[in-house]
Amino acid sequence: MSRLIPGESFNLGVCYYPEQWPEDMWADDYKRMREMGFNVVRMGEFAWNFFEPEEGVYSFDLFDRAIDLASMQGLKVILGTPTATPPAWMTHRYPGILNISKDGVPYHHGNRRHYNYSSPVYHKYCAKITEAMARHYANHLGVIGWQIDNELNAEGGAFYAEADHAAFRIWLKEKYGSLYALNEAWGTIFWNQSYSEWEQVHLPLSSLNPHQGLDEKRFFSDNAISFVRIQVEILRKLAPKQWITTNGMFPHLNNHAMTDELLDFYSYDSYPNFTSLWNDGDREKPLMDRIYSNYLTITRSISPNFGIMEQQAGPGGWVNFKQSTPKPGQIRLWTYQSIAHGADMLLYFRWRTATFGTEIYWHGINDYHNRPNRRVAEVANVGRELKTIGQAIAGSRYVADVAILHDYDNEWDGELDVWLGPLTKESEYSWSKSLQFNHIPFNYLYIENKTSINELTCYKVLIYPHPAMMSEETAELLKQYVAGGGKLVFGARTGYKDKKGHCRMSPFPGPVAELCGITVEEFTVIADKAATPNIRWIDDGDACMQACLFNDILYPENDTTETLAVYEDDYYAGKAALTRNTYGRGEAYYYGAVFSHEVADALTRRLGLQPAAADWLELPLEVEIAVREKEGCQIVFLLNYSGKEVKARLLRDSVDMLEGERLAEGALNISPYGVKILLIE
Amino acid sequence: MSRLIPGESFNLGVCYYPEQWPEDMWADDYKRMREMGFNVVRMGEFAWNFFEPEEGVYSFDLFDRAIDLASMQGLKVILGTPTATPPAWMTHRYPGILNISKDGVPYHHGNRRHYNYSSPVYHKYCAKITEAMARHYANHLGVIGWQIDNELNAEGGAFYAEADHAAFRIWLKEKYGSLYALNEAWGTIFWNQSYSEWEQVHLPLSSLNPHQGLDEKRFFSDNAISFVRIQVEILRKLAPKQWITTNGMFPHLNNHAMTDELLDFYSYDSYPNFTSLWNDGDREKPLMDRIYSNYLTITRSISPNFGIMEQQAGPGGWVNFKQSTPKPGQIRLWTYQSIAHGADMLLYFRWRTATFGTEIYWHGINDYHNRPNRRVAEVANVGRELKTIGQAIAGSRYVADVAILHDYDNEWDGELDVWLGPLTKESEYSWSKSLQFNHIPFNYLYIENKTSINELTCYKVLIYPHPAMMSEETAELLKQYVAGGGKLVFGARTGYKDKKGHCRMSPFPGPVAELCGITVEEFTVIADKAATPNIRWIDDGDACMQACLFNDILYPENDTTETLAVYEDDYYAGKAALTRNTYGRGEAYYYGAVFSHEVADALTRRLGLQPAAADWLELPLEVEIAVREKEGCQIVFLLNYSGKEVKARLLRDSVDMLEGERLAEGALNISPYGVKILLIE
Amino acid sequence: MSRLIPGESFNLGVCYYPEQWPEDMWADDYKRMREMGFNVVRMGEFAWNFFEPEEGVYSFDLFDRAIDLASMQGLKVILGTPTATPPAWMTHRYPGILNISKDGVPYHHGNRRHYNYSSPVYHKYCAKITEAMARHYANHLGVIGWQIDNELNAEGGAFYAEADHAAFRIWLKEKYGSLYALNEAWGTIFWNQSYSEWEQVHLPLSSLNPHQGLDEKRFFSDNAISFVRIQVEILRKLAPKQWITTNGMFPHLNNHAMTDELLDFYSYDSYPNFTSLWNDGDREKPLMDRIYSNYLTITRSISPNFGIMEQQAGPGGWVNFKQSTPKPGQIRLWTYQSIAHGADMLLYFRWRTATFGTEIYWHGINDYHNRPNRRVAEVANVGRELKTIGQAIAGSRYVADVAILHDYDNEWDGELDVWLGPLTKESEYSWSKSLQFNHIPFNYLYIENKTSINELTCYKVLIYPHPAMMSEETAELLKQYVAGGGKLVFGARTGYKDKKGHCRMSPFPGPVAELCGITVEEFTVIADKAATPNIRWIDDGDACMQACLFNDILYPENDTTETLAVYEDDYYAGKAALTRNTYGRGEAYYYGAVFSHEVADALTRRLGLQPAAADWLELPLEVEIAVREKEGCQIVFLLNYSGKEVKARLLRDSVDMLEGERLAEGALNISPYGVKILLIE
Repeated sequence: MSRLIPGESFNLGVCYYPEQWPEDMWADDYKRMREMGFNVVRMGEFAWNFFEPEEGVYSFDLFDRAIDLASMQGLKVILGTPTATPPAWMTHRYPGILNISKDGVPYHHGNRRHYNYSSPVYHKYCAKITEAMARHYANHLGVIGWQIDNELNAEGGAFYAEADHAAFRIWLKEKYGSLYALNEAWGTIFWNQSYSEWEQVHLPLSSLNPHQGLDEKRFFSDNAISFVRIQVEILRKLAPKQWITTNGMFPHLNNHAMTDELLDFYSYDSYPNFTSLWNDGDREKPLMDRIYSNYLTITRSISPNFGIMEQQAGPGGWVNFKQSTPKPGQIRLWTYQSIAHGADMLLYFRWRTATFGTEIYWHGINDYHNRPNRRVAEVANVGRELKTIGQAIAGSRYVADVAILHDYDNEWDGELDVWLGPLTKESEYSWSKSLQFNHIPFNYLYIENKTSINELTCYKVLIYPHPAMMSEETAELLKQYVAGGGKLVFGARTGYKDKKGHCRMSPFPGPVAELCGITVEEFTVIADKAATPNIRWIDDGDACMQACLFNDILYPENDTTETLAVYEDDYYAGKAALTRNTYGRGEAYYYGAVFSHEVADALTRRLGLQPAAADWLELPLEVEIAVREKEGCQIVFLLNYSGKEVKARLLRDSVDMLEGERLAEGALNISPYGVKILLIE
Repeated sequence: MSRLIPGESFNLGVCYYPEQWPEDMWADDYKRMREMGFNVVRMGEFAWNFFEPEEGVYSFDLFDRAIDLASMQGLKVILGTPTATPPAWMTHRYPGILNISKDGVPYHHGNRRHYNYSSPVYHKYCAKITEAMARHYANHLGVIGWQIDNELNAEGGAFYAEADHAAFRIWLKEKYGSLYALNEAWGTIFWNQSYSEWEQVHLPLSSLNPHQGLDEKRFFSDNAISFVRIQVEILRKLAPKQWITTNGMFPHLNNHAMTDELLDFYSYDSYPNFTSLWNDGDREKPLMDRIYSNYLTITRSISPNFGIMEQQAGPGGWVNFKQSTPKPGQIRLWTYQSIAHGADMLLYFRWRTATFGTEIYWHGINDYHNRPNRRVAEVANVGRELKTIGQAIAGSRYVADVAILHDYDNEWDGELDVWLGPLTKESEYSWSKSLQFNHIPFNYLYIENKTSINELTCYKVLIYPHPAMMSEETAELLKQYVAGGGKLVFGARTGYKDKKGHCRMSPFPGPVAELCGITVEEFTVIADKAATPNIRWIDDGDACMQACLFNDILYPENDTTETLAVYEDDYYAGKAALTRNTYGRGEAYYYGAVFSHEVADALTRRLGLQPAAADWLELPLEVEIAVREKEGCQIVFLLNYSGKEVKARLLRDSVDMLEGERLAEGALNISPYGVKILLIE
Repeated sequence: MSRLIPGESFNLGVCYYPEQWPEDMWADDYKRMREMGFNVVRMGEFAWNFFEPEEGVYSFDLFDRAIDLASMQGLKVILGTPTATPPAWMTHRYPGILNISKDGVPYHHGNRRHYNYSSPVYHKYCAKITEAMARHYANHLGVIGWQIDNELNAEGGAFYAEADHAAFRIWLKEKYGSLYALNEAWGTIFWNQSYSEWEQVHLPLSSLNPHQGLDEKRFFSDNAISFVRIQVEILRKLAPKQWITTNGMFPHLNNHAMTDELLDFYSYDSYPNFTSLWNDGDREKPLMDRIYSNYLTITRSISPNFGIMEQQAGPGGWVNFKQSTPKPGQIRLWTYQSIAHGADMLLYFRWRTATFGTEIYWHGINDYHNRPNRRVAEVANVGRELKTIGQAIAGSRYVADVAILHDYDNEWDGELDVWLGPLTKESEYSWSKSLQFNHIPFNYLYIENKTSINELTCYKVLIYPHPAMMSEETAELLKQYVAGGGKLVFGARTGYKDKKGHCRMSPFPGPVAELCGITVEEFTVIADKAATPNIRWIDDGDACMQACLFNDILYPENDTTETLAVYEDDYYAGKAALTRNTYGRGEAYYYGAVFSHEVADALTRRLGLQPAAADWLELPLEVEIAVREKEGCQIVFLLNYSGKEVKARLLRDSVDMLEGERLAEGALNISPYGVKILLIE
């Protein structure tokens, strides 16, 4: 992240499409951007036809003028490679470039990513346009970095063109070496699926083979990364002084690997008002826009400091869906939500709402009419604030004592596997909600083969809700963590699959049975929600909570295993539902069900997890706390997600960074959708 | 309409399929038709195989006998051209005739309209069969008119065969002249969609481009009309003494243009019991079968007097859906519903229920068993009544002081655009319900480029709920109307798009901002129904009504602008929600939300709209009133849609046309599903 | 059935997949099977690649070893022909073998039955593999019988490959002889569908023609049977000493005809916990797993004694759906449910849960870990019990005085026809529930052309809920039954269609109008559930029950016709809803609506139906009773489907077969999910 725009502090900006507006508007647009405190502009990512209006003919006139004018206003440019939307002349001439649906329906021109990542022809054209742009802009001082393509896999990330099947076969050959090994890994003995020639192998079309389905997602991810690599290698060679990122985050893509291998840092597109389309509001205590802190937390697990390439700046929507308008204060709130979680650069989407096209309702800062409005005023206010505090924030790091463990293999396996996928989603939601409302900052940590023990030991507590698929290596790592004094929490269905997705022929939870000090005696799906059993806490007989969705019935195997809660109902009443095993200097918890918010709360207390700044700050439920640290200073973000003024309580004095004043002990009012940033030295 | 069966008064009849019944049944069927008071019969529209049993071989024997026998019974024949269902030999030989779904799945034989309107081969066969039939029947005195095809676009009206893409390109070339103009109109700069060769252009398959989507519907409509034109031109030339109509009404077809350009009058197929399949009943005060008055009102906007080519005469249903049976009295009620709204000819569907085929449950007047039943008796009763009163009714015109404005462009644009389409549907429903229950007759008026001021000034009030797309010309026309003394009501989202569907770069409501005396400060979708804000009426602080689905926050710009209601909730509490601007001698109202039944009711009162016959008639809610006028006489239809006897109250004397007796002042009982027709001279 | 494993008594066993496990596990597996009381094992049905690893190369090594080892342990083998899952090399080389969806999407490798039954190429390969296996195993003493393919049509039973269209044409030619006859039967006059060349005819793709749709299902069934015949003829010739069966039951297959023509007996796969996926539980008094008694009753109508080829032995599920775990006792309960209904052989599915593949969650008796568990213990207990009582049970016959009549034509016609199909489903559910809860054993009887009067006269009461399609022959048979003293009950919509599915041109109920002594005056769909009318019983004015879904309004035609109940509501209040006609020595009942549980209960009483063993046994609602008879002895099964202990009451003494002790009069406790088997000599 250190390479991100050297010399600047916090980078604020906006996405701009000069090609969509009369050229005589540009100067005024740039001038107002600068006045609003912006210093970066993204452009070019959907403009292939301008760069290559016909095959092999390259043209930079329009963007040269647009970039030069921006530079003159002191705005640095981030250039998107335009590969998300190939020109019509190309797909019409080379239809093999197009993606095909699982049902065999070809995609057509007029949308995004109607192409596939595998077509050699498309690879060639992407390489050529990237090379042409790189050669042209590598030494342009106004261009500071590149965004590869746009929102890779935002369209679902599934590809079934003929070129994809061919690429899948090559990928499989590299992975397995032989059809014998592939047949074994996919368990093709089942239902007589065995392959005797490579040409027989396809991405799953009619097949429900779960191992093939897992390799399908692994391939989709690797293939997307390979596609990105083509462009990155050209840019690294030709434009070594400019940084490279891309914006996410979307399915079937290992963003961690991609970022580690190819990017300078990762960027996220944050649209908290998508939650106005979801039914989270039907739950008790819904998180709504606050759930975006979760996505930002995942983003931080990829890049400790990251960019926001698109930050919601108005009502969102295509012609076929609609979000409500951010309320006064929410754009600013969400901006600081992104920053609190680790953003060091942030661009709003977009400068002015498009007057035509599918995103005619994806409203920018400016309305169609281009006159002052309250969103412009709100963003300008953020610009002023960041001018003051941006430098102090930039480069500081988010602080957390607890992490939720997650991994791509289980996520992808869980897409097809309903005995698994829904469990993880529910438990991660419950845990993040519980930690949020308890004011306990947390990280996500993605476990990979190369994860080191040091990445774990910086946390007091790790929660790994349902790692059904677990390698011996991961089990060893986790044992080492607990032995060294860590606390580790598992939920139902842990450890029963190996990395091929085959079930182990040993008692559950397989390689962590010893660590947890239990085996799973038997288990059941809870098919009828009304029949969900309760658990009873041994240390609090009155607490009665539901053991949701799935029940592992636990059998404590060791003296060191303590039963913390038992089932109250059905034929396994009295059997262990939650256990704690002392292992080395640490503790391993196993909960036989899916974590509800209530159970996560109860465990949070028993794990001894403390709210951030608990010794000097009392916070109401509505407020999120986040802490970024730099050079011994703590920057404490308080974010009020409610439409009411709320009261916090300070037990020591501090500095209000936004107001630039000292705060004494006592009540601290936070306005509706308001933000406080305290500096603790 | 004057050409409609000269010499007759009201025309009553039935659809009949002689080819489906043993020939020895025909004579008895015709005799009973005549006894029931019928004088017209429709036939032939699904009988291509009888007219052309093999390619190029024409045969008229069966229909000659069927028509001659009908003529002998005094029954005039309406002939359908059989082009809705091409023969199997044709589509099998020329598969390019077949339609293809958006997903690329070809349609097959065995349904209706599995063909496309664009195939040159099909054009040729349609022309040939029409010519053969026209030559044969042009001078047959028993044949009075033609129905083109059957229920054009009833199957959805979407076509994606190769021939359709080709025809679309030709249509676009004519419309835009150049790809440059097309690219500009479709905003193809967005997402790099620009076309560099015509062959790259298709009807939208993967594309969500809203401008392309709008042109798609315009093309579907124009293409259907072109298809009709082929037949009409032949018939006009060869059979000039017979009239031409077709029956509707279905999506993606500008029936107004088609009727004006090609037909003598328009016909509608009325099946009010389709409402037994819908969930309208879930609403408060559902309209149920009474909503068909709306469709008849739209029909009247096409043809002031019109035909009903198919009037429901029994339970409806295909094998895959089912309607309940009309209750005793309902067939007669619905017959007079059609007549009250302007029908001068009415045919029941159908004489006898088919004993085989997809419509085996689309019950006719006669049951399969062909014996007397209560429907036969009910229809015979109608026949007797119309013998008496038909002449008095025929040619009279429906009377209304208020009209709902509507136009095809906004309707078609609103199909894809959820920021628009659902708003119009809801508001038109609310307004028509409010006017219905308040006994205020109204018209629909479709605004087109050629609409003249005279068509507007005959109304005291015009309601144009959500004309998002509005040309400068239309705006001028509306200003002229208001300036001249009219009252005009708009709802949210008015005027922000031009005729290409691009958003204007000026404050909303664009070209009528001055007329309304307001601008829209900002706006929001109401995503969460539970969070719908209320409005408060300035003149009635206690009235509290919901501002549904969408909120424009209004800023009164002029001294002449009066705020009638303000929002009560959310951050825009206190801001104007409903305004009235005095403009010239009239008034322009702007309501920032979607009209609920309640808000429409409240506005109805404030607009000074009066129930029909308010000075001499008091009506219960269950009864619809409609007035047709001819030569200074008023024919007043009272239709009781409920299954209970209801009481009206006469404050003057009048004539009961059906009973043929004078009615004194006082109570007037209307039986369950009953009808009264009063003559006021 | 007499040929089923001569010399043995009851046959108990398990499905086993030796190819899926290391060979060194086999011996232990077999040993434990034998210890659990098993004597039969099914194998081979998904193992084509092992028998024919490449085209034309046959190999029996692995299965020779597996079968020999089983034989050594005293386990007899049932061999599946492997045709449900063709090898990848075959479908890749001959893609014409693959099935195609109605929308034209080809199926691909990796699932089951992705092939079609019509491909001549596939016929050839199936014949060759069957012949090879038959030659190899015909004289193997360890192999006692064959299962053809596996679960024919489990995947939906619909086929639209090119070969299927071709086979359909041949089938139609044989059935109709001429296109003239086909056009007449399909009513192709409607919508101009008439065919003039055979090549124009297809299985219905876009078509909604109901007669074509009926022939489609008849063809699917005949075509499946033809497919089975290929294998059966080879096996009969080459392996005459081994029996042949197959396992079901699935859509579009006349299992009765198939079994009569080709099999020694029929087998069923019983998975009662599928009901944990259904919403039956939303009803009052749900049947849940007890509904499987219905399916077993249908199975018994095919084979009086039958095999259970797969009996649920653990939680079921693929990766994409999940059932809950059988509770302790349920596996045993369901085993005896199968046996009570006529099973003489039963195999559990499966020995051990697969550790890979789509059915990774279809849990067997043994868990992945292969250690003792409670399911193993429960099944071992069944094994012990059947060792004692198996011989007494085997060959005994289920006893019932009442039967529900059913036929394939109405079932298949009702798939497309919503005026029919849902009625039958609801009424059969109501009747079977009513008979179940009233402890009245019943049979299903499938009416076919060849059904003889003797098959009917063994029942006191026959219930034929909605035989819309009825031939004159069937009507005659039913008349004969009633004339001879039987009681026959019809519901709404009886008799209005002929065997082509055309409606009769005579009053309903057509050919049984005279038998019932009524005609249907008119009728209506009940579209609005809330508006369902009530009926009033003439003999019990207080009883008020709903007349569901459809109402025939009845007109009693004869003096012998008695009205038992009238409608209470709507315009037909007071008209007959339920009638009884005395005809010969018997009675014909006609109920104008769909049978609810309540109405079925009320009729049960009036029909004089008695609970089984009513004179000596009182049973609680939770318990099913079933009686099997052999050589003058009655074996009485009492099955407790509830999780509570329940009490029955014995009024005479008897023998508890499982406990091997005499039971005195008095209370008889049945444990949760418990079973009692009483012997009455």
